[in-house]
Amino acid sequence: MTRIITISREYGSGGRELGKLLAQKLGYAYYDKEIVSEIAQRSELSESYVQNMIEQKPFIFPVHIGESLEPQADPMLSQSQELFGLQCSILRELGEKSDCVIVGRCADYVLSEHDPLRLFVYAQLEHRMQRCRDTEDGMGDLSEKELRTRIQAVDRQRSDYYEFCTGNRWSDRLNYDLCVNTSKISLEELAEAIAMVVRSLPSAN
Amino acid sequence: MTRIITISREYGSGGRELGKLLAQKLGYAYYDKEIVSEIAQRSELSESYVQNMIEQKPFIFPVHIGESLEPQADPMLSQSQELFGLQCSILRELGEKSDCVIVGRCADYVLSEHDPLRLFVYAQLEHRMQRCRDTEDGMGDLSEKELRTRIQAVDRQRSDYYEFCTGNRWSDRLNYDLCVNTSKISLEELAEAIAMVVRSLPSAN
Repeated sequence: MTRIITISREYGSGGRELGKLLAQKLGYAYYDKEIVSEIAQRSELSESYVQNMIEQKPFIFPVHIGESLEPQADPMLSQSQELFGLQCSILRELGEKSDCVIVGRCADYVLSEHDPLRLFVYAQLEHRMQRCRDTEDGMGDLSEKELRTRIQAVDRQRSDYYEFCTGNRWSDRLNYDLCVNTSKISLEELAEAIAMVVRSLPSAN
Repeated sequence: MTRIITISREYGSGGRELGKLLAQKLGYAYYDKEIVSEIAQRSELSESYVQNMIEQKPFIFPVHIGESLEPQADPMLSQSQELFGLQCSILRELGEKSDCVIVGRCADYVLSEHDPLRLFVYAQLEHRMQRCRDTEDGMGDLSEKELRTRIQAVDRQRSDYYEFCTGNRWSDRLNYDLCVNTSKISLEELAEAIAMVVRSLPSAN
């Protein structure tokens, strides 16, 4: 069986960069935005549309008090479900194909049969704000308050999405094998140490 | 300045064993029950008495409705405060003496000026139950329910103690640099990876 590493991460914590470093060190494939591109290609929708749709809670059944309990036909809803299903299929295909690092997308849950090494990457808020200013386009123009609000909103979106899809709490350490704070330890050193752990794991058969 | 590693740990997660392994690998001193022994020696009290006293919340001021707001003289209270003060002094002395690993005792908070590497060790409940049965005296005789209750009670005591002494939440990942789940990764491999991280940290001056 392939070895899979999944990364959940707070916004601005450097989880994506850590994932890339880890994939490089281990010679693994790295999947992040590639998954959205693949969904877009297969569904014949634009990447930005897909990105927006799969960041919503996918199965929000409308409530119709006093009406039938049958869910009403809702084109947005069925498209959201369809895209989530497509995402699951793509994750499973990628997981079968080769050893890989996958960022986000509830991959820890969807690919749980592969017994992935599940990482959660986080950092102090001020550290994340600084990283956003240093690395994310357009963040330099935001005020302290605007940036803080933006970071908290993205975290909330990730948390809601994860919890809705998996039924588990995004921030619960028990869903992860390692939770790493990038405020003090460099991404390079963290990647090196995690790569060592991965190499030591019994082969995933 | 010396390098200090502090370990907070869920009961039965193997945090103590991980700390010992880490200290061995790094050639650091290891302090755990030695701190209680030292407090007992300096206070001329028995180790079991000290252990019991310092596991209580140390500053529980008695409430006297309608009386003076001045705390009443309470021999148990002042002894508890005294022992906590002694514990802080001993931690600071140990922290000054040499590089070390310290288990529990809110050392991450008391020695924060040393900028310690702060670890939190946890595991799935069933894994902790198994570890307790395998390693802790007398645990083999407990029923599943009794053992679960015991584990939860010790965790609650540690959490209350930490939160009372530090004002921070024991289980908040932001109080730690690395949170490691011992359910899947062996203690030996975790210690090796963490030792690598420690060696890579800039010298603590």
